[in-house]
Amino acid sequence: MKKKVKKTIVTGDVLAKEFKEHSVAEFFKKNRQMLGLYGKVRTLTTVVHEYVTNSLDACEEAGILPEIEIKLDELGPEYYQITIKDNGPGLTKDTVGKALGQLLAGTKFHRLMQMRGQQGIGASGCTMLSQMTTGKAIKVISGTGKGKAFACEISIDPKKNEPQIYNMRDLDRKFRGLMIQAKFKGVLYRESAMGPLEYLRRTAIANPHAKIIFRSPKGEKIIFNRTTTYIPKPPKPMKPHPAGVTVDDVITMAHHTKAQKVSSFLKNDFERIGDTAIAQIQKLVSFDLNKDPRKLTWSEAEQIVNAFKKIKFIAPSADGLRPIGEARIRKSLESIVQPEYVYTLTRPPKVYAGGYPFQVEIGIAYGGKAGITTENNQAKEDENQGVKVEIMRFANRAPLLFDAGNCAITKAVHSIDWKRYGIRDLENVPLTIFVNFISVHVPYTGAGKQAIADEDEIMEELRLALMMCARKTARYISAKRAEIEKKMKRDMFYKYIPEVAEALSKITKKDKNKLIKKLEWLVLNKLKLEKPEEKKVKRLKPKQKGE
Amino acid sequence: MKKKVKKTIVTGDVLAKEFKEHSVAEFFKKNRQMLGLYGKVRTLTTVVHEYVTNSLDACEEAGILPEIEIKLDELGPEYYQITIKDNGPGLTKDTVGKALGQLLAGTKFHRLMQMRGQQGIGASGCTMLSQMTTGKAIKVISGTGKGKAFACEISIDPKKNEPQIYNMRDLDRKFRGLMIQAKFKGVLYRESAMGPLEYLRRTAIANPHAKIIFRSPKGEKIIFNRTTTYIPKPPKPMKPHPAGVTVDDVITMAHHTKAQKVSSFLKNDFERIGDTAIAQIQKLVSFDLNKDPRKLTWSEAEQIVNAFKKIKFIAPSADGLRPIGEARIRKSLESIVQPEYVYTLTRPPKVYAGGYPFQVEIGIAYGGKAGITTENNQAKEDENQGVKVEIMRFANRAPLLFDAGNCAITKAVHSIDWKRYGIRDLENVPLTIFVNFISVHVPYTGAGKQAIADEDEIMEELRLALMMCARKTARYISAKRAEIEKKMKRDMFYKYIPEVAEALSKITKKDKNKLIKKLEWLVLNKLKLEKPEEKKVKRLKPKQKGE
Repeated sequence: MKKKVKKTIVTGDVLAKEFKEHSVAEFFKKNRQMLGLYGKVRTLTTVVHEYVTNSLDACEEAGILPEIEIKLDELGPEYYQITIKDNGPGLTKDTVGKALGQLLAGTKFHRLMQMRGQQGIGASGCTMLSQMTTGKAIKVISGTGKGKAFACEISIDPKKNEPQIYNMRDLDRKFRGLMIQAKFKGVLYRESAMGPLEYLRRTAIANPHAKIIFRSPKGEKIIFNRTTTYIPKPPKPMKPHPAGVTVDDVITMAHHTKAQKVSSFLKNDFERIGDTAIAQIQKLVSFDLNKDPRKLTWSEAEQIVNAFKKIKFIAPSADGLRPIGEARIRKSLESIVQPEYVYTLTRPPKVYAGGYPFQVEIGIAYGGKAGITTENNQAKEDENQGVKVEIMRFANRAPLLFDAGNCAITKAVHSIDWKRYGIRDLENVPLTIFVNFISVHVPYTGAGKQAIADEDEIMEELRLALMMCARKTARYISAKRAEIEKKMKRDMFYKYIPEVAEALSKITKKDKNKLIKKLEWLVLNKLKLEKPEEKKVKRLKPKQKGE
Repeated sequence: MKKKVKKTIVTGDVLAKEFKEHSVAEFFKKNRQMLGLYGKVRTLTTVVHEYVTNSLDACEEAGILPEIEIKLDELGPEYYQITIKDNGPGLTKDTVGKALGQLLAGTKFHRLMQMRGQQGIGASGCTMLSQMTTGKAIKVISGTGKGKAFACEISIDPKKNEPQIYNMRDLDRKFRGLMIQAKFKGVLYRESAMGPLEYLRRTAIANPHAKIIFRSPKGEKIIFNRTTTYIPKPPKPMKPHPAGVTVDDVITMAHHTKAQKVSSFLKNDFERIGDTAIAQIQKLVSFDLNKDPRKLTWSEAEQIVNAFKKIKFIAPSADGLRPIGEARIRKSLESIVQPEYVYTLTRPPKVYAGGYPFQVEIGIAYGGKAGITTENNQAKEDENQGVKVEIMRFANRAPLLFDAGNCAITKAVHSIDWKRYGIRDLENVPLTIFVNFISVHVPYTGAGKQAIADEDEIMEELRLALMMCARKTARYISAKRAEIEKKMKRDMFYKYIPEVAEALSKITKKDKNKLIKKLEWLVLNKLKLEKPEEKKVKRLKPKQKGE
């Protein structure tokens, strides 16, 4: 028996012959679901998402008020064409191939900057999908506004992860912006909560400065007009904050710095490190901070990180973060769900592992259409995730429609003990919770960018912010509940006043009508019906920042 | 105003200067959460997962009964060392660098074969993490059983995604297997449902042929002995089944085939295509199947795929799939949850998009400790996902502990209308649902391999299999419920028999004791208490395959 087993053993040298390397493009081609490109409806929405976020990012960085036109045409069964045109800064002949035909290439990955995209995968993934499902390259027209615009077709060589550019030609006109046309098979347009229209509606909510024009496959034209012409300040590349960096980060940065000394490296390449901090660090480490940063050893870098932990730094600057703002979130929620009550909160920036600053914005809407929108009901059906309260998730203003169950935002919402805030059953309450997570690096759980990883610092901050909002909402709800109970009591007393007065009048021989009036006065005074307490609070509240 | 806006516009050529490419290693280094390497407890479990699945895969492919030893040592606060040793085929000097120090390299990606790992990312990701958190390379000892074993240290150059091998040396002894020692900071060992111990316990459940020895940081030694010495047949590379392939798949395969004609290409490179099918396909396409496959155009390949859809092919062979088997799942569940009732089902293979065969195995355990294990309760707390019934998920026998909310298995379970099966409230029922999804390519939603994408065909098959099991379980539950109701009725009648007999005896002047006996006989006969119906069904059921 033992002999038999031995005979069938395949040795390591035989298996070694099967060793191969493959490109990141091949990897994502075989695992398109990791880019969110799976499911007929989801795939089409994800394509729209990738192109729209790229356009918004480009406009924001260039300081342009975005105007984006998206057209979807049904070319056949489960066969669609998307045409998207923006007024952004455009791509050049040098960059167009890498931006749209090579994975992991782009302007976003290496900069700590608040953008919707961050990996250089999305748009190139769409090019690959077009090619995989229709055999066709994507068509591009681009111009920077200076000189002639150009047109070309682009596909990807998956074995090499390199762009293939065909038919590059100058156009006889000026144009600033980017136009992409791509075809996809095996996709489906639906006007559901997971469809492109809902995606664009939510994009408009979180980006009130953008004009978005959508032409649906049915030929309808839907325009989301901008409600403000205020262009958000262009995002700013940030330096890492010492509070969250790892030894590896310090080593990697030290080896690439332009500074000549460790001290100047620390001051130049990190946030919030000045001369005082340098003096403090010098006391905590065993080596001279005048040392060449390129010669920094692991254990020296470790000493620096340990020193970082002992020093109190100022919180990261909010300079590079661009919140929507409490007033604008309020306006958006009021317009969508017409609630009885809204509370919005933009928290100060925090830092999570790696030194990345982030910021949380919350809006809670109660009553009206909150929580019971058709979109939400459909979302429940579509996702089967048992999520009952309506949670609108955003990361850097880009809506997150999928993978709710996996997201720090959803987990944070469900981790709150809502009963403590007068919400006895989260499933049956008219509540919409809006959350915008902004950061120079969003820790997405996957390349499909639909869920935020539940890092400790992020969960803590989300929970804290949610509880602050819940407390405010609880005050409104309990005031409202007390009011309702009082009203019921008063109504009951009123109902019996005539009978009581009748009896009293018989006993005391006093006028029945006078007794009724007196009793009514008594009830009115004892059970005063007031405006709900929260409304007062609202009036007393100082004007919100950004208003 | 307009002028001012124009002034601040940054043009495309300026932004072009920010264009950079980066390697897949840099990408995953910055996005380690996409590999599941985030959260202190989760990270350590994921590391164990990556190494153990690699060992099991290697042993299975080599036809070896696996014996795996895992040792965790606490070196400091949030600082651990893992030492893992297997008796597998080992790596050679040529392959060790790529296997452990380069992402997207390995033996698994390009073969359609049922394995736990499939991307060539996991183990290299761990090397990167060791380096990122401790600055240290991993230590390796390997031998193929022939000649001397060797030792070396390995790290990754992230800029190039290339292995760096140090200190390669021959050892003065023979050894077959692989030993890896790696250190990690920022991780935590917990004996929770998300910890390494639970991971190994579940691995043992789904791999009864493996012996697993675990030495915990507390110094405990836990041995999971094998309950069978039956080595699963080595996995077999599969060809794609015509039912699911896309045009792109056909084109890519046609360009790499060794066949000279399209007809022989189709016969050789796909499953289940014989001469009859070729004749049918020839009738459905407009070109000669004697054509050179390398010259196949997109539209010709499209014709082939359309023809595939019209022809009825035999279902994919189960040759390459290695289910655990109904009997072994039953045994496992009986030993873990000691249920009142178990039903297990191994479904025949199906195909999902891309022509990948897959197979679903389900076990439902009711009563006993089912659904109310401490592990499950803790899991609820840890994940905050609102998952109440205990769902044990496996993919190719590897336990999936994380990202439950995002997984096709969880979604399928929650999409079932359990009320129809007598389970009124899934949250409060003693139910454990065991699901093993096996395939030559598992469509994981992320590189962290913890959730299966809800592709249509997969959801359909999972739902079908779950409903079949639910029906069987329902029969048991309803029989049990009827029995309980009968028993309550009988008990009630029994209670009143003395009084009724007393009264009757007074009226009829008959002996009270005789009356009691007669009444008791009546009740016993009218309300016969039987063994629950399902137990009969169980006895009548033919012996399960594999038993």
